[in-house]
Amino acid sequence: MIRKLRRTRLFEIEQCINLLFLCKWLFLGSIVGALAGSASAILLISLDQATDFRENNLWIIALLPIGGLISGLLYYHFGQRSEKGNNLLLEEYHHAEQTIPLRMAPLVLIGTIITHLFGGSAGREGTAVQMGGALSDQFGKWFKLNAHDRKIIIVMGISAGFASVFGTPLAGAIFALEVLVLGKIRYEAILPSFIAAVIGNYVCNLWPIDHSHYHIPFVPELTPTRLAWTAAAGILFGLAAMLFSKSTHGFGSLFKKHIGYAPARPLIGGAVLAIIIYFIGTTKYIGLGIPTIEASFVDSMNSYDFLIKIAFTAFTIGAGFKGGEVTPLFFIGATLGNAMVWLIPLPMPLLAGMGFVAVFAGATNTPIACTLMGIELFGADCGVYVAIACVVAYLFSGHTGIYSSQIIGAPKH
Amino acid sequence: MIRKLRRTRLFEIEQCINLLFLCKWLFLGSIVGALAGSASAILLISLDQATDFRENNLWIIALLPIGGLISGLLYYHFGQRSEKGNNLLLEEYHHAEQTIPLRMAPLVLIGTIITHLFGGSAGREGTAVQMGGALSDQFGKWFKLNAHDRKIIIVMGISAGFASVFGTPLAGAIFALEVLVLGKIRYEAILPSFIAAVIGNYVCNLWPIDHSHYHIPFVPELTPTRLAWTAAAGILFGLAAMLFSKSTHGFGSLFKKHIGYAPARPLIGGAVLAIIIYFIGTTKYIGLGIPTIEASFVDSMNSYDFLIKIAFTAFTIGAGFKGGEVTPLFFIGATLGNAMVWLIPLPMPLLAGMGFVAVFAGATNTPIACTLMGIELFGADCGVYVAIACVVAYLFSGHTGIYSSQIIGAPKH
Repeated sequence: MIRKLRRTRLFEIEQCINLLFLCKWLFLGSIVGALAGSASAILLISLDQATDFRENNLWIIALLPIGGLISGLLYYHFGQRSEKGNNLLLEEYHHAEQTIPLRMAPLVLIGTIITHLFGGSAGREGTAVQMGGALSDQFGKWFKLNAHDRKIIIVMGISAGFASVFGTPLAGAIFALEVLVLGKIRYEAILPSFIAAVIGNYVCNLWPIDHSHYHIPFVPELTPTRLAWTAAAGILFGLAAMLFSKSTHGFGSLFKKHIGYAPARPLIGGAVLAIIIYFIGTTKYIGLGIPTIEASFVDSMNSYDFLIKIAFTAFTIGAGFKGGEVTPLFFIGATLGNAMVWLIPLPMPLLAGMGFVAVFAGATNTPIACTLMGIELFGADCGVYVAIACVVAYLFSGHTGIYSSQIIGAPKH
Repeated sequence: MIRKLRRTRLFEIEQCINLLFLCKWLFLGSIVGALAGSASAILLISLDQATDFRENNLWIIALLPIGGLISGLLYYHFGQRSEKGNNLLLEEYHHAEQTIPLRMAPLVLIGTIITHLFGGSAGREGTAVQMGGALSDQFGKWFKLNAHDRKIIIVMGISAGFASVFGTPLAGAIFALEVLVLGKIRYEAILPSFIAAVIGNYVCNLWPIDHSHYHIPFVPELTPTRLAWTAAAGILFGLAAMLFSKSTHGFGSLFKKHIGYAPARPLIGGAVLAIIIYFIGTTKYIGLGIPTIEASFVDSMNSYDFLIKIAFTAFTIGAGFKGGEVTPLFFIGATLGNAMVWLIPLPMPLLAGMGFVAVFAGATNTPIACTLMGIELFGADCGVYVAIACVVAYLFSGHTGIYSSQIIGAPKH
């Protein structure tokens, strides 16, 4: 009888702790979500305006080296550890040292706006994730959270930032759990991550922003033959992801090796880029490239588009410009998928959608988050195709993704 | 130069190994998928006929004790280790001892048909998963696979069995990776698991079977208030899952403690059940209960339906009848969600859908698989609702799910 009572007591205690845990993270998640979601909205609005201005005033691209210098000087003089970008978040998660500097948020925002205003090729998720991480970590300091809770706060910042910048809460929640360690999901933080993602996305949508929409009108049944074709496409997406990661790291090392003074790197890199853009005479491969991504679901693209975008983005990021890599990865995947229609007997919009998420899955080693992103963006019908493409791309992209601070937790097979 | 060549060489070798890996598992996955998918189809067809026969010949329920005795004797004399059911698959994955007996497949099929023909309350996923596991493990023996590959084969059997019996390939693939260890996903087997799930589902659909369809007509936007309500619903789903797991284990221990001779347990249990069914005068709570699950998305259900179904199923399974637990968990979740409409201001079909997957997520500790299942069955719109419900239910269901051989790999928070 006493044993039974004790058991009941234990049960009650466990459930009360769970309830406290839930309430605590609902509360903290709402604040982190609100901060990161608003930061993402401000980023999205700023990038829209910067892109509009650039497209209507193409002369500004000539000033790309000046933009690069400003961005470089800002980070050189005020950046401290912010320079490490997304890797700093991963490092602080794995080996907590000190609070992520608050200045990371405004610096990466300004740096990213400069990149897009003057015509570099980059993304935005790095910015959203870094703003989310920096803001939420500050806020964790005020609440004097312990080391374990601080890790969860960093996860929430990543989750809310990612979820809100793309309007994909499920992908954001799983991305934050999946990106920290290759081959592992951090289940300990699963509830806080989902709460932050949902609130982050909700708050971002309260602002006057508009997420891009993509449409795959027809998805055929997945037969064994189509499975084999999907796997073949996945291999190419994985190799493209690997090429992207290697190019980014390669250009980064090259700039570091030959140009000792950090702010000079984006200055010189920006000059080279501006000249190339002038000579090729199109702005297709700079900025976020959203019009091209959208077009990949509808029209035929050039078979070399993805290669040029890889080169432009790896060069921009390698030179030290700020921004993310994910939207360019969408561009690379969607155009590559689109071009595959000559090789692979699957509908073009489906191939574009598969590439959109699969190259990203390969480059960041997050196949489950990317599968969910495919479902959130294109609907549940294409779920099996994007899942196979993401998983195969994950397998073929090698063990070094774009985040060098990602720890390898499990072999890929 | 030499270093560069070596690197290129290494790169080529790694990608060739990946390609071999992919081809090998595409091949093995196709065979496992074909076997498990066909086994699931035969199960689905048999269960349909058994259920039809029972509903048209209710007198057969009076023979439930005889059915129990036959099932008990079969397992007693021929079952060997098959008795352990799903747990045997989990144990062989964690500590390989010897091949899963092939007889597990026909035995669990016959046992499950007996349960449903004579009116026990049980599911079918256990049967599909055990048939898939037993068939694929045999087949691994012929190919003389090593210990590591054998683990992957078991994962594939689970994946293909689950995917095909419910028509949910993504959920099946992740379920097999997620169920083995609480709080971990086995990334090493991610590609084979997806291949087996897709092929299993494809092959099953070649047979004349029809999966149940559910429809959530309207999903409101997830606001912070609705998030809090969803979390509250998740708590109740998690507690219901815990009650189910505890009841199943409790009835099992009770039967084992008081009835030493195993085949007598379903005999006596069947007699008690038949008498109760006679007195309550309805077949609503026996069998799979699919009509009630479907009705939960449309009509108001009784607030006590889920409790009676928990009692019936826990008693049936505890007495030693064969079958699965998942379809009853769908019933419990859908009717509980339906009844919550008086408490929680969310649309009734949405609550039913949330419960459908969340109670299952709590009882098996597979929140990500269940989120995907919700998306596959009800569409992507309800994704965030089912995700939050599943994750909260996972948190509140305790560390002991229905599979006692599941290893705890990470705390829930």
